[in-house]
Amino acid sequence: MCGVFGIYGNENASHLTYLGLYALQHRGQESAGIVTSDGKSLKVHKGMGLVGEVFHEKVLKDLTGSIAIGHVRYSTTGSSMIENAQPILVSCSKGDLAIGHNGNLVNARELREELEKQGSIFQTTVDSEIFLHLIARSSLQSREEALVDSLKRVRGAYTLVILWEDEIVGVRDPNGFRPLCIGEKEGAYVLASETCALDLIGANFIRDVEPGEIVFIGKNLIRSIKPFTETPTSFCIFENIYFARPDSWMMGKSVHSIRKKLGVELAQEHPAQADVVIPVPDSGNSAAMGYSEASGIPLEMGFIRNHYVGRTFLQPSQFIRDLGVTIKLNPIREVIEGKRVVVVDDSIVRGTTSRSRVRILRDAGAREVHVRISCPPHVSPCYYGIDFPSTAELIASSHSLDEIKSYLEADSLGYLSKEGMLRAMSGLDIGFCTACYTKEYPVPVEEGIHKLIMEKKRKKIVL
Amino acid sequence: MCGVFGIYGNENASHLTYLGLYALQHRGQESAGIVTSDGKSLKVHKGMGLVGEVFHEKVLKDLTGSIAIGHVRYSTTGSSMIENAQPILVSCSKGDLAIGHNGNLVNARELREELEKQGSIFQTTVDSEIFLHLIARSSLQSREEALVDSLKRVRGAYTLVILWEDEIVGVRDPNGFRPLCIGEKEGAYVLASETCALDLIGANFIRDVEPGEIVFIGKNLIRSIKPFTETPTSFCIFENIYFARPDSWMMGKSVHSIRKKLGVELAQEHPAQADVVIPVPDSGNSAAMGYSEASGIPLEMGFIRNHYVGRTFLQPSQFIRDLGVTIKLNPIREVIEGKRVVVVDDSIVRGTTSRSRVRILRDAGAREVHVRISCPPHVSPCYYGIDFPSTAELIASSHSLDEIKSYLEADSLGYLSKEGMLRAMSGLDIGFCTACYTKEYPVPVEEGIHKLIMEKKRKKIVL
Amino acid sequence: MCGVFGIYGNENASHLTYLGLYALQHRGQESAGIVTSDGKSLKVHKGMGLVGEVFHEKVLKDLTGSIAIGHVRYSTTGSSMIENAQPILVSCSKGDLAIGHNGNLVNARELREELEKQGSIFQTTVDSEIFLHLIARSSLQSREEALVDSLKRVRGAYTLVILWEDEIVGVRDPNGFRPLCIGEKEGAYVLASETCALDLIGANFIRDVEPGEIVFIGKNLIRSIKPFTETPTSFCIFENIYFARPDSWMMGKSVHSIRKKLGVELAQEHPAQADVVIPVPDSGNSAAMGYSEASGIPLEMGFIRNHYVGRTFLQPSQFIRDLGVTIKLNPIREVIEGKRVVVVDDSIVRGTTSRSRVRILRDAGAREVHVRISCPPHVSPCYYGIDFPSTAELIASSHSLDEIKSYLEADSLGYLSKEGMLRAMSGLDIGFCTACYTKEYPVPVEEGIHKLIMEKKRKKIVL
Amino acid sequence: MCGVFGIYGNENASHLTYLGLYALQHRGQESAGIVTSDGKSLKVHKGMGLVGEVFHEKVLKDLTGSIAIGHVRYSTTGSSMIENAQPILVSCSKGDLAIGHNGNLVNARELREELEKQGSIFQTTVDSEIFLHLIARSSLQSREEALVDSLKRVRGAYTLVILWEDEIVGVRDPNGFRPLCIGEKEGAYVLASETCALDLIGANFIRDVEPGEIVFIGKNLIRSIKPFTETPTSFCIFENIYFARPDSWMMGKSVHSIRKKLGVELAQEHPAQADVVIPVPDSGNSAAMGYSEASGIPLEMGFIRNHYVGRTFLQPSQFIRDLGVTIKLNPIREVIEGKRVVVVDDSIVRGTTSRSRVRILRDAGAREVHVRISCPPHVSPCYYGIDFPSTAELIASSHSLDEIKSYLEADSLGYLSKEGMLRAMSGLDIGFCTACYTKEYPVPVEEGIHKLIMEKKRKKIVL
Repeated sequence: MCGVFGIYGNENASHLTYLGLYALQHRGQESAGIVTSDGKSLKVHKGMGLVGEVFHEKVLKDLTGSIAIGHVRYSTTGSSMIENAQPILVSCSKGDLAIGHNGNLVNARELREELEKQGSIFQTTVDSEIFLHLIARSSLQSREEALVDSLKRVRGAYTLVILWEDEIVGVRDPNGFRPLCIGEKEGAYVLASETCALDLIGANFIRDVEPGEIVFIGKNLIRSIKPFTETPTSFCIFENIYFARPDSWMMGKSVHSIRKKLGVELAQEHPAQADVVIPVPDSGNSAAMGYSEASGIPLEMGFIRNHYVGRTFLQPSQFIRDLGVTIKLNPIREVIEGKRVVVVDDSIVRGTTSRSRVRILRDAGAREVHVRISCPPHVSPCYYGIDFPSTAELIASSHSLDEIKSYLEADSLGYLSKEGMLRAMSGLDIGFCTACYTKEYPVPVEEGIHKLIMEKKRKKIVL
Repeated sequence: MCGVFGIYGNENASHLTYLGLYALQHRGQESAGIVTSDGKSLKVHKGMGLVGEVFHEKVLKDLTGSIAIGHVRYSTTGSSMIENAQPILVSCSKGDLAIGHNGNLVNARELREELEKQGSIFQTTVDSEIFLHLIARSSLQSREEALVDSLKRVRGAYTLVILWEDEIVGVRDPNGFRPLCIGEKEGAYVLASETCALDLIGANFIRDVEPGEIVFIGKNLIRSIKPFTETPTSFCIFENIYFARPDSWMMGKSVHSIRKKLGVELAQEHPAQADVVIPVPDSGNSAAMGYSEASGIPLEMGFIRNHYVGRTFLQPSQFIRDLGVTIKLNPIREVIEGKRVVVVDDSIVRGTTSRSRVRILRDAGAREVHVRISCPPHVSPCYYGIDFPSTAELIASSHSLDEIKSYLEADSLGYLSKEGMLRAMSGLDIGFCTACYTKEYPVPVEEGIHKLIMEKKRKKIVL
Repeated sequence: MCGVFGIYGNENASHLTYLGLYALQHRGQESAGIVTSDGKSLKVHKGMGLVGEVFHEKVLKDLTGSIAIGHVRYSTTGSSMIENAQPILVSCSKGDLAIGHNGNLVNARELREELEKQGSIFQTTVDSEIFLHLIARSSLQSREEALVDSLKRVRGAYTLVILWEDEIVGVRDPNGFRPLCIGEKEGAYVLASETCALDLIGANFIRDVEPGEIVFIGKNLIRSIKPFTETPTSFCIFENIYFARPDSWMMGKSVHSIRKKLGVELAQEHPAQADVVIPVPDSGNSAAMGYSEASGIPLEMGFIRNHYVGRTFLQPSQFIRDLGVTIKLNPIREVIEGKRVVVVDDSIVRGTTSRSRVRILRDAGAREVHVRISCPPHVSPCYYGIDFPSTAELIASSHSLDEIKSYLEADSLGYLSKEGMLRAMSGLDIGFCTACYTKEYPVPVEEGIHKLIMEKKRKKIVL
Repeated sequence: MCGVFGIYGNENASHLTYLGLYALQHRGQESAGIVTSDGKSLKVHKGMGLVGEVFHEKVLKDLTGSIAIGHVRYSTTGSSMIENAQPILVSCSKGDLAIGHNGNLVNARELREELEKQGSIFQTTVDSEIFLHLIARSSLQSREEALVDSLKRVRGAYTLVILWEDEIVGVRDPNGFRPLCIGEKEGAYVLASETCALDLIGANFIRDVEPGEIVFIGKNLIRSIKPFTETPTSFCIFENIYFARPDSWMMGKSVHSIRKKLGVELAQEHPAQADVVIPVPDSGNSAAMGYSEASGIPLEMGFIRNHYVGRTFLQPSQFIRDLGVTIKLNPIREVIEGKRVVVVDDSIVRGTTSRSRVRILRDAGAREVHVRISCPPHVSPCYYGIDFPSTAELIASSHSLDEIKSYLEADSLGYLSKEGMLRAMSGLDIGFCTACYTKEYPVPVEEGIHKLIMEKKRKKIVL
């Protein structure tokens, strides 16, 4: 998962990109980067860590120019290395360009092998580098032609922001797996993964980039093409369920309101005889509200989130692990004690965390614990950019509902059905990818592929 | 404001103190420190920053011994320096001892002058150092006598944890301004500012230390004395309103439930014709729930809190300041747009932040904004340990309700009355200090005193 | 300027490479990197700064494998960025490989343009990346053929260490501009820029790699080829005069002894009526000894070098600059006062530093100051890897000896003649490049070329 | 060992103190601190590490005022903690003052016990804190009287710089163990441990502070008193042999020239049939020159010192230790091979380092190795401020010359005699402390005392 941002035509481009990335920080905490252009030369700064750690005033001032793109990257074990930070900036036959990518390609391996056969060298282990090689190698001369030519070669999920010395480009793959929207601030056009980034910089939302659309933003010009064969759209439904920020809007709907509707559907499908509805904060908040409203069971903030838990927290020593403390969420005993509790969460992955939460509620005196999940069981991995664990680790891939309920030590367990989930999304003008629930992959995946296909060839980088 | 913790009789004393301080992190983010004893010699580690930044596994392992105290300190401008980090550890005629202090003395100046006249040298600029000088100078020989002798000299607010090589001591001043409780974990006694620290380490709550009580915890022994003349108690009511964590219990009541009752009272005193109740997260959450329940107006989480705002955020450059962005709270337009909004907060200090929040709500489309505050107006500073700004800066000290309402650009403004506030606290077995609302100071304050009296003599330490 | 190191067949390969780079630290202080192989996969760690700063025990342990190469890079303003740190590690059609380069290519621009035309993308701004593209693109399939094929395309100065998963390769260009030697330690073969690196790890010196030779070191095998058309050799004479460490041996001679002979020649060409010979430490030490021995004028260590001057020293504020203090060298007044001083240095570049040294000597009471330089005047830049300033900045390129003498405020000035310099080098079995003194460039340089030709296309990286 | 500096009356006081400490860095690398006064309030900055690491431009600018003192502290194992960094700044009955101390008290334990009995609390573990308690407690009211009163209580070695808001004071104990000199720069008076600090800031040397003298420097005033009973002086002779910088002047003589004379005496006492004289750089350079001149045996710089060895060098892993590499000094084989070598050093402490150097010389081909030491054998510890190891660890305390020679594996060994040493010092207008060679302690040391007497009470501070 990643977040991208771009702006053309504001002299504070680097500062605004900094703020934009800041608003998109939830989409990636591993690394952050900004590339700017003053119309002639490009400047870049990247680093490992949060946006606020990587950038300082001096750096932002040195990143001169009124054109900029930025990127935040998600932390996945093993491949967290500065070489993989984005945007990637290169020189090639088409000039100097930089690219920031959100998504995952499914034909990365074959493209990489083909490119290597042709003499390309790979310096990173992210599939995003493939775009650059394809553009550089395209026999078509204009940037636009070379870009389209290249995009037709790749398959999978990709939302891109691209910076040339005098232009930025926004790309959304034909399926529209990942979001991208257009805004405007004082005459400058803005691209962002989510509308919350527009809000933070005071930009107006114009519209979403459409699936299969390429938007070119240059001097006095915003221009759009749709060069791909039309294909059914398959927006990642999990963006709406968990990943996006609740204050963002996706395809015309507020994420918060979508999640509330998920909660309403969930209450209807899986009612419970209970005294209180408690969300797992903060991701379960909206759905819990919907559940509470629909069921009439009062909502309580039964968990307090410790805001000081960060990456600085002590690597759990054996002692602390044995203690089994739950550093991040602390129950408010008073709203739990003696109560029949409905706890609303957005997903169960391995089950260990959910199980520990049920136990916390019982330790705090809950009489009954009813677990409600605002989407169907996750049974299959995502090949389009979300870092789920492998199938084997997904508890729902190999356990029945009853087994999961027993494992969680819950009094009851209810997942929202696929139909309920889609009902909550009705009104969004787009189709959805639900592969992680249904195994129906909208873009065929090569046999034997796995998410880290590029990583297979990766040299472990010691940090 | 500060947090204190102590434990006697667990071989993982440093780790448990680390966790305890972690749970108390909201009481102080400036510095953290732990002192341990193995029965013979004392070890200390202190540093600037969060608990998770100051301590690492290696350090905790080196802090050997089954006896420990710890301290987290609140960040106040100017005096944030390592010399002032606590616990303060000294050698003196009574042996080696360390002290951690939460509170503020009101006769610090006269005591310090007297001590200096007698030849004492001051190396910190915190009033907490005074306790150590008094103990060291006491003509009474036993530790207990010297401690009582010293405490009788000081006036003001003080909750103390003290560590000697073979004992820890918990002290709560006769007025009981600041909280302190006793817990037990597997035979080891624990002292903590709040019960949430007991929860985190899996300790059982035994009871609160009473105002005026001194608790000595040694080998096979917990012993208590009450050496002070009885005095009416005056627990800081603002602990219950804002400062303490909602999952803590104070004098037998859950802080969350107290705050909910504040919201209920507030709804009754200041109803509003509105469509939605929105808390200022997270401190306004509990009161907003009470307001919603009592008024029947639905609660919505209209503000999203950015969890990545930390001390790493760019020192706002002029550009970002001019942009007027609100990095920390982002509104969810959908739940606000076109609505008449009741926004519930715990206090208005200078008014600038509240004003900006009203504006955010209006920008997000609120039709009306009704500000409700879950306590009376703050009109006077605290001399007992809370770092309010000076009287002149407190907007309510010099402006009428109407003027404040106009300044905030709110459609209506309602503060909870003193009576309503006290009703919400009924059932707590303690009297309250309400001086910041009433100017009735339970412990007389020297004329001309101000909170930073020790700081007056302070040499600015360049960090 | 850079230093390279490689080792095949010692299980402590990363530690030994660390030590080897440590001994070569004088050849580059900007960045350091090590790549290892365990026979199957490659691991890399690189960083900005000194070897001792970049590597820690944990990192060295994680760099597993018995095969390793390492690189230290010289600090030049502007292009000091992590992307340019070496070894550069890539994946390509020929497998995974890493390369470390000392030297400079003179046809980098045309090669780069050609490669870009063919679709290559450049991610660094060092010419070293060109080798990798050429190898990756070679139509010849074996590593050896592809390497030779590639090397025949480049012109200029290059000493290379290359690592494949099961082999290391040492390359010295046909002119032999930069040094490279072979050593042996307990059955493991070693490659190093200078013999001092062999000494530090306790390896035996075997021989120098010859100009135009490629050495392949694999399992139970060291194999050498000389695929280039024979060409007159042109070893960089400035390595012997200044750059190499005095305890290294070059082509069979000790660098210290060569420099001493330079001093002897200098004394004969430019005698002085003086009381004392003072070196500019430490680079002038050996030549000053030779001058003293040949002239009979006693040697004195008249300058004390401050060993604590490092990169940590305060960026000179205007105040300190105005003070004109000389932080690095301090005169010993007693050995200077009232004396006629011969000060021996290895070069004059811009003249400003030399001028300040003359002034220090006068301020310390020198009656006369006679400047003696152990090589001819520098009149032209180096295109083969030494970072001299541009011609315009070289004082000798535009000023007569008399003018320089006046500028330095010296009583006399003597440069060693080219003939004297070559006499001091007699006995070394190699020809020399003396282009910086004579403008006779042994490898033709494209018109309009300048040292930073690749940098021209460089995007400034803000650090 | 420590270095002190002070300046009165220059608006760039903090910058000049920074430079002064920089020149005195060889006297202490553990911590550095500066206190300034603008005539009214005091400011301080201290930190662990080198001067260049602790101070940055911003900090120096914030340290406003035209009055300053500074201190660098020597690194000794265990007590290296920020609490012990100097100058120590306190508030007391005599006002705010700061003190920097070079030396060691011999009656620290009894004074500390007495002060604790009177109610003082100790926050550091350095004996320097005692001065502050004594001054604070003095019944005499004026600063001057209180200071003199206090100094009469302490015994041992102390050179002090003291800062009050409007004055600095320099103190040298009656024995004059440690140096202190007075300089002048553009109307501002300067105090410094060594004259090299005056040189660096461009100040003129005025004179040494005399043993037993107290110098008060205030507005338009430098005033001196000598309040102590006259006592024979005993300047630390090891300052001249090893500790001071060779470009400093002590009591009217250049340290370099003194050391050269030591070498001359050594050559006369212990001639050798040899081919070359090699110093252990840099501390043996001056004496080796003297030896060479007197003996007629040519001097060679046979060891190259690696300038990049710093605190950043890898904590030697077992592997590197087993390799037995000598990271710091590298021999130049060519000047050693086949030669009979005289190696000149300033002292032998445990013998291990000297033994390793003899071995390096043999490995580099030396035919014979003759060790010559420019002072007598060290047989007893220093109680006056130099951090020698305990008697048991001093090889000469328990081994005969023959045994040491055998241990070193040297062909011959010669220490300079006490008489020779004193002859080399003739002409300096002061008596010497030679206790480390003779066990004749000029200030009686309490029985059972040892250097770290204050440390005994020290709580281990975990860093």
